[in-house]
Amino acid sequence: MACAPDPSSNKNNSSILSQQVKRFSRIPASWGAHAWSIGREDPRRAIHALKVGTALALVSLLYILEPLFKGVGKNAMWAVMTVVVVQEFTAGATLCKGLNRGLGTVLAGSLAFIIELVAARSGKVFRALFVGSSVFLIGFAATYLRFFPTIKKSYDYGVVIFLLTFNLITVSSFRQENVVPIARDRLITIAIGCAICVFMSLFVLPNWSGEDLHYSTVHKFEGLARSIEACVTEYFQDRDKDDNILDKQESRASIQIGYRAVLESKSSDETLAHYASWEPRHSMRCYSYPWQKYVKLGSVLRHFAYTVAALHGCLESEIQTPPSVRSLFRNPCTRVAREVAKVLQELAISIRDHHRCAPDELSDHLHEALQDLNSAIRSQPRLFLGSKHACANSRVVMELNSGKNTAATTTRTTLPSSKTDTASLLERRKAKADQPPSGSRNERTTLRPTLSKIAMTSLEFSEALPFAAFASLLVEMVVRLEMVMEEVKKLERAANFREFTGHDCLAIDVTSNERMRNPNGVPLHSHTVSTAAE
Amino acid sequence: MACAPDPSSNKNNSSILSQQVKRFSRIPASWGAHAWSIGREDPRRAIHALKVGTALALVSLLYILEPLFKGVGKNAMWAVMTVVVVQEFTAGATLCKGLNRGLGTVLAGSLAFIIELVAARSGKVFRALFVGSSVFLIGFAATYLRFFPTIKKSYDYGVVIFLLTFNLITVSSFRQENVVPIARDRLITIAIGCAICVFMSLFVLPNWSGEDLHYSTVHKFEGLARSIEACVTEYFQDRDKDDNILDKQESRASIQIGYRAVLESKSSDETLAHYASWEPRHSMRCYSYPWQKYVKLGSVLRHFAYTVAALHGCLESEIQTPPSVRSLFRNPCTRVAREVAKVLQELAISIRDHHRCAPDELSDHLHEALQDLNSAIRSQPRLFLGSKHACANSRVVMELNSGKNTAATTTRTTLPSSKTDTASLLERRKAKADQPPSGSRNERTTLRPTLSKIAMTSLEFSEALPFAAFASLLVEMVVRLEMVMEEVKKLERAANFREFTGHDCLAIDVTSNERMRNPNGVPLHSHTVSTAAE
Repeated sequence: MACAPDPSSNKNNSSILSQQVKRFSRIPASWGAHAWSIGREDPRRAIHALKVGTALALVSLLYILEPLFKGVGKNAMWAVMTVVVVQEFTAGATLCKGLNRGLGTVLAGSLAFIIELVAARSGKVFRALFVGSSVFLIGFAATYLRFFPTIKKSYDYGVVIFLLTFNLITVSSFRQENVVPIARDRLITIAIGCAICVFMSLFVLPNWSGEDLHYSTVHKFEGLARSIEACVTEYFQDRDKDDNILDKQESRASIQIGYRAVLESKSSDETLAHYASWEPRHSMRCYSYPWQKYVKLGSVLRHFAYTVAALHGCLESEIQTPPSVRSLFRNPCTRVAREVAKVLQELAISIRDHHRCAPDELSDHLHEALQDLNSAIRSQPRLFLGSKHACANSRVVMELNSGKNTAATTTRTTLPSSKTDTASLLERRKAKADQPPSGSRNERTTLRPTLSKIAMTSLEFSEALPFAAFASLLVEMVVRLEMVMEEVKKLERAANFREFTGHDCLAIDVTSNERMRNPNGVPLHSHTVSTAAE
Repeated sequence: MACAPDPSSNKNNSSILSQQVKRFSRIPASWGAHAWSIGREDPRRAIHALKVGTALALVSLLYILEPLFKGVGKNAMWAVMTVVVVQEFTAGATLCKGLNRGLGTVLAGSLAFIIELVAARSGKVFRALFVGSSVFLIGFAATYLRFFPTIKKSYDYGVVIFLLTFNLITVSSFRQENVVPIARDRLITIAIGCAICVFMSLFVLPNWSGEDLHYSTVHKFEGLARSIEACVTEYFQDRDKDDNILDKQESRASIQIGYRAVLESKSSDETLAHYASWEPRHSMRCYSYPWQKYVKLGSVLRHFAYTVAALHGCLESEIQTPPSVRSLFRNPCTRVAREVAKVLQELAISIRDHHRCAPDELSDHLHEALQDLNSAIRSQPRLFLGSKHACANSRVVMELNSGKNTAATTTRTTLPSSKTDTASLLERRKAKADQPPSGSRNERTTLRPTLSKIAMTSLEFSEALPFAAFASLLVEMVVRLEMVMEEVKKLERAANFREFTGHDCLAIDVTSNERMRNPNGVPLHSHTVSTAAE
């Protein structure tokens, strides 16, 4: 039985169809928006792409224009290949790759020439054997060489090109009498390709690895400063006001961004410093710019960032000091953190502007802040007795579900105030676990009961400890800041920074156009340095 | 006046000469030893080099043997190039690169064909302009595409090959009428090259990225276990016995190796998991092996390792709890650390052997150890009052040079016992600084006085804190260990590990032939798991 077409379903169908069409038509738009955002994050990317396009169009002229084609002939292909492979984002990387390619080709050409000399005098079968075995041997040796750490670090690409060229020349020599022209033509066209790349990299809107390294170091300082401030603010925030869970998650994520970028910077630092050492000294004041000092500073900063990560760990820890205790130390701790952040900000500014940092101004406030924290801790000796009070009776766990929030107004640390955190943790655990904790002891096949047992045991005695850890980490952070300052001073001396002249530069806004120089692609949060206000 | 040749000086000269000759003759020997050590660290390297040599010799046969040469002709070169560039250390990497190369070539060939269709019908000048502008546009677009994170991660090489092939074909089409044979021949020879590479990678002594990832995860657990044990042993070691400074430095360095390897494993983990996802499931029991779970486990392990780094920070901190205090807690702390290390070891074994870990045995001892630490801390409540006693009077700094080591036998924490560390720190600072601290307040141009001022301020109040931080970090470590166990459990479930059957496997020696599987090239310290003895 055929049913009459329902006009409404038809309408529905067409509306679904039009929705689908709309959705598909939105795909290119969303791709376009994505592409646009990538370019806006760092406009140098679009410029680099334009440069590569131009270089390729230029090198194609070798093939397209009659007089040029007569000169180089079909070997123009090698120039095209060279441009595709050698042109890199920064000047240093292009120079390094170009030199590797040139060196690899020259060495391979010479070696192939020697082998050709030997092979030329022999019969066909011997020649085939000789070519085959030399290809095998050189292939083995070159591949093995790539595992050497020094080669791997600086000349990996050169070895690949060496192997490539050697094989191409040696194998073609088997069917071609005179192999020298091949090698010469290849070398010339590669040189042309390299020349175009180097010209585009060095003279047309160049990107410098050295500058990237310099500004990424500055951003590391700024990111750490933000992390520390956010971390301490978060730690002393009122837990009861959890109406903005999304906001909280966002602020926690922003804490991570700062120190994670430092912790994960090792390989990018080393690569940038390696490429920077190839770059001509463009705008710097001394002839051998100490790029390795930046790497060293990066490693000291990582050492500092471990403390920041541990501080963040205090924030995320399952065992928390009761809010009432924390609030006692809010002001001195926040002040120490703010001063540490300020020192980091000032170091960032002094590195960015290539001037030496002000020696005493950097740490006078820090000194006072530490003394404040000192007296605050001294004024609350009973705090560190907390563990005894807390663990004297084992009724703790039994009483957990009663008496929440009763101690919100007490100023001294007492057991009841710590119940809030403990109870919430236990509840969370209960919700997560499949069985009720009461029956868990008998079911030894699952991990969960054992785990919560561990967590509970640790809770019994550690309410008093976490704040001590937090304070200790703050102090340790100040001590490590000293090492960072030492290292910055060494960098300043080695790089010949300007002498410090006064306070005028401390009020500079950091939100200038450094967004485009951020090499990690992480969008920087704009913010103002609060130095001038203090 | 000619003087007679002095026979002794002649002898001297010849001996110097022979020494020089000897030294130079030793250079190849030392290089040989270096090469040998690299191969011995991971014999798969030498095997890989042999495989590349063989693949190159095989692909040269295309050119050397008459019947094969008649088939492919001069395009055999592309096969040689493909082998040089595509053959990678592991099967997954070779497959990934081969597919990228194939896909890039096919796409570029198709696009070039379309452009050829348009260009073929036009005059010479228009054609030149059209070819030039398409080279520019595609060059721009492809280079820009390489900045997209998803493309950069998986298809970077494919885009380079696309650009290379497109340019080669488009530019040659300008002087050659029919471009289809070029594209076809190139594709065939590249396919031959890829086939040889894939054959050598998959069927001749293959190296699997997945296996590397699996064993590197196991080694991470073992390294962390070693780090934690060494760290705690070092922390409670008697500082007076510093006859073996070299030994101490070595043990400190070995602490770092363990957790640094974990902290710096992010990019290598991701690369290995990416390549592993390309590999056919060789010896695993399920069809889509959860390599991403390994990456997740790696990130949880990094989170754990931050605590280990912070623990190591306690060891290296400038502010130290007096040895007398530390010795009070030696046994419980060492026990907790040993149990944590044991759990890590057992997790390592269970992952290595693809069986599920024993649920309760893992944490029963840990539970007891935590309770021990608990009662130890409860029995010493005055410890956490230390700060008040220590800072009540400000004579601390004045008295520093007297009364060293007087408190070595006291069991409770008192101020004098902390002087040893404070004094030694101050002495070190004095020796390092150029001017005596007394005159420092007036010389505000140098950083040093300010810095030591900070350090001294922090010392005044923090003798009591560092141990609290240390203990808190140990407890935090246990809590984070729980997260690691959760993640291991998820991995076990996803990867379908065998059920745990009994204790028989806990006594397995870890020193088996995993040395050769260590992907970081760090020689592993052989050691035996002490589980069976307990």
